[in-house]
Amino acid sequence: MTIPSFVIGIAGGTGAGKTTVAREVTEDVSDSVTRIPMDNYYEDLSHLDFEEREEVNYDHPSAFEWELLRDHLDELLSGQTIEMPQYDFTMHNRKDEHVTVEPTDVVVLEGILALYDSEINEMLDLQVYVETDADVRILRRIERDVVDRERDLEGVMDQYLSTVKPMHEQFVEPTKKHANLIIPEGANRVAVNLLEEKVQAEARSHPTWNVDEELNLSDDHADRDSRRAPPAATPGGDGERWHSAENGE
Amino acid sequence: MTIPSFVIGIAGGTGAGKTTVAREVTEDVSDSVTRIPMDNYYEDLSHLDFEEREEVNYDHPSAFEWELLRDHLDELLSGQTIEMPQYDFTMHNRKDEHVTVEPTDVVVLEGILALYDSEINEMLDLQVYVETDADVRILRRIERDVVDRERDLEGVMDQYLSTVKPMHEQFVEPTKKHANLIIPEGANRVAVNLLEEKVQAEARSHPTWNVDEELNLSDDHADRDSRRAPPAATPGGDGERWHSAENGE
Repeated sequence: MTIPSFVIGIAGGTGAGKTTVAREVTEDVSDSVTRIPMDNYYEDLSHLDFEEREEVNYDHPSAFEWELLRDHLDELLSGQTIEMPQYDFTMHNRKDEHVTVEPTDVVVLEGILALYDSEINEMLDLQVYVETDADVRILRRIERDVVDRERDLEGVMDQYLSTVKPMHEQFVEPTKKHANLIIPEGANRVAVNLLEEKVQAEARSHPTWNVDEELNLSDDHADRDSRRAPPAATPGGDGERWHSAENGE
Repeated sequence: MTIPSFVIGIAGGTGAGKTTVAREVTEDVSDSVTRIPMDNYYEDLSHLDFEEREEVNYDHPSAFEWELLRDHLDELLSGQTIEMPQYDFTMHNRKDEHVTVEPTDVVVLEGILALYDSEINEMLDLQVYVETDADVRILRRIERDVVDRERDLEGVMDQYLSTVKPMHEQFVEPTKKHANLIIPEGANRVAVNLLEEKVQAEARSHPTWNVDEELNLSDDHADRDSRRAPPAATPGGDGERWHSAENGE
């Protein structure tokens, strides 16, 4: 059983570079890091039809199932396994399947509102806000939504102006006040290196296998190895504990 | 001879908490750290009389002797000793005496415009901007100038509105764009701990005595000890390499 020793929250507006920061900071110790994209905790909207789901304001705090996210973080922090929901951006809805996530030394929560909830903030050891100019952010969002997700440019622009931008100013940007560190202009190399060294130190100082050995479970290799392999339902399955390939509705 | 391995610039507006951050980040390895307050590099104004010096705009970049600061940083970074000027806030002028400063593993440059000059920025390994709300900053400045330096409140307020604030907005605040890390609200404990660990790692990975040993100067203890003692002319003489007790005109 691993009790996570270091929990990082990474917040910031759409297109700020949260995912890049999270990935680069953790890539050399990915086996010891669990990344939790907040998108997986969008409310289950199965009771709505597709057109209704398209109209939902996904940038408002009410779009998230906070109680489930708090419970899951709490369970991971006490060394328990969780069944993490998965999100389908094409369907604008939670998928049917879950992913089993075991606790690791380092946990990274990332999402536009990662620093929004006071109970979650209390669980975080380091609160990071990635600050990037709004013009750079909208260009990245267009790239992601229009090029990668093949959404309509006009619709992306409308959504940005009608909900994304006002919600950012009302709910996301003010959480910068809760940050311990602000990383400017997306993933800058010096900031990433500094955080990476910290994450590596936390991962090294609490190696997973030591806990097993202390519990005299050293013959339990099969179980340990299965935990270290990527969960079957992880998108990409590239060995990283990265439970959604995308970020933000 | 020590070649500094890590050079940090700490910028931010008046009263932002630059000095507190610099002190807390370096206090456990103060023997391995040289702190350079930019105030020591205010231009020598001996050609002006006191009343004229009182009228100088100390928040404009032209108030600093950049060439000397660049040369001194460059000399420290190539392992050379410098004769650092000292500043007298009561006289609004450079003092006659200098302080001999030897290079150490870590060098910290702090001041409102520490991230202003492009040549100096290239010498920095980590560029930190301490960001604190303007209302908190002016209250700290009043505390420092009126309570500690016994200046007139009316004069402090006039100076703030006529030069400090506009110069901040024109010259200081834009340097945030050069920062790798922004530390919000003065010295927050988590950010300070993170930087402190980095500074300690840099100080440990390049211990001063190793260089002497590699150069086969291990019998040269007297010289080494004299370097580790605080320079005679250091204000306070508390063992910290802290070459000015105050910060900002």
